[in-house]
Amino acid sequence: MVQYKLYYFNARGRAELIRFIFAAAGQEYEDVRFEREQWPEYKPKSPLGQAPYLDVVENGQTFQLAQSLTIARYLARKFNLAGKSAEEQSEAEMYADQVLDLLNELVKIHFEKDETRKAEVANKFYTETIPNTLKVFESKIAKNGSGYLVASGLTWADLFLVDFLGWLREKKDSFLSNVPAVKALDQKVLNHPKLSEWIAKRPKTEL
Amino acid sequence: MVQYKLYYFNARGRAELIRFIFAAAGQEYEDVRFEREQWPEYKPKSPLGQAPYLDVVENGQTFQLAQSLTIARYLARKFNLAGKSAEEQSEAEMYADQVLDLLNELVKIHFEKDETRKAEVANKFYTETIPNTLKVFESKIAKNGSGYLVASGLTWADLFLVDFLGWLREKKDSFLSNVPAVKALDQKVLNHPKLSEWIAKRPKTEL
Ligand SMILES: N[C@@H](CCC(=O)N[C@@H](CS)C(=O)NCC(=O)O)C(=O)O
Ligand SMILES: N[C@@H](CCC(=O)N[C@@H](CS)C(=O)NCC(=O)O)C(=O)O
Repeated sequence: MVQYKLYYFNARGRAELIRFIFAAAGQEYEDVRFEREQWPEYKPKSPLGQAPYLDVVENGQTFQLAQSLTIARYLARKFNLAGKSAEEQSEAEMYADQVLDLLNELVKIHFEKDETRKAEVANKFYTETIPNTLKVFESKIAKNGSGYLVASGLTWADLFLVDFLGWLREKKDSFLSNVPAVKALDQKVLNHPKLSEWIAKRPKTEL
Repeated sequence: MVQYKLYYFNARGRAELIRFIFAAAGQEYEDVRFEREQWPEYKPKSPLGQAPYLDVVENGQTFQLAQSLTIARYLARKFNLAGKSAEEQSEAEMYADQVLDLLNELVKIHFEKDETRKAEVANKFYTETIPNTLKVFESKIAKNGSGYLVASGLTWADLFLVDFLGWLREKKDSFLSNVPAVKALDQKVLNHPKLSEWIAKRPKTEL
């Protein structure tokens, strides 16, 4: 039997995609959460000195991974959420990398202390980057006919897109009004029985 | 027969890792380079409206990919530069994601216009982030005994690390003076016959 332990701060942050994958796969795991003050105790145990990290325990052996998207790809492949062919797996990875670019920009804006600069970067992000990226996703979803980013169905790239859209909060609906296929994908994924169960019961945290 | 066409600006930038993989694999490809002014002609042909992107042409069918690391993973798997087991492939991906974090920070510093802020961010990057990351890499390389980041030998993660180290230019040697295993890896990879041939003949560009 394989045991999974995910380590991260008590936040959605860069770990929530991984938790979405576990949830969608219906896979049990230990969701280890710590506070900032406890981090010095965990940091030396992490493969790269950063969180999130994952312990995979099998036959008394522990395999460790760090880097959120690397962990996500590893688990997605294990749980058949990575896409079917080598080509589809790469397509899913491509979309996920694109979502990561969005998420990194969002994080940058969130932590920007200079208000003028924050407004400038946010403006470009909300009026250009997000709409343009969603338009690209819209045409891919519409074209492949599956209702998901890749043709064979749900992958971790969809989970990541939905995770990202969640960060837009009350702004989300207006972004989705021009991209009906993305909107339908978002709703379908949020209604996934196991995922919606997770979202309903997950710890309420600010980030 | 499979034909590969890589599209990017006339720069090393985010495409050089992909060119390193082609070089190390001894794989022919078309290295399509364009100037800024020509980008509007290529942008609509790119899967995500960004460069680099790759065309894979086989039996008259074209498969397209974007996102530099997604392209790199795809080619590394094709050319046996991805690592042996699923676990090793993920380890290589983890190291590559870590190098990407460094590269993104370097790009941020390069394009920072506010001189005070540039100095601040650069200071943290050069005195903390790079040395700490190289120390982690050092212990992994020393521990696994192969002289490379993963135990079975050369992977695309090593190529990416060496590509990144190249950006440090005249600063590189001082960073490598405390991490002998990283230094040896860098030299070994730079002496790889096919890679060194590519580095000697590649177009000289500023970035
Ligand atoms: N690119 C990495 C980023 C990891 C990262 O920056 N983690 C932060 C928390 S979100 C962290 O570990 N900070 C504490 C530290 O670096 O000591 C990933 O996606 O996993
Ligand atoms: N995360 C992406 C970044 C791609 C990217 O930002 N590409 C830039 C050039 S380095 C680009 O295409 N700029 C022109 C544009 O967006 O229109 C990757 O690694 O491929």
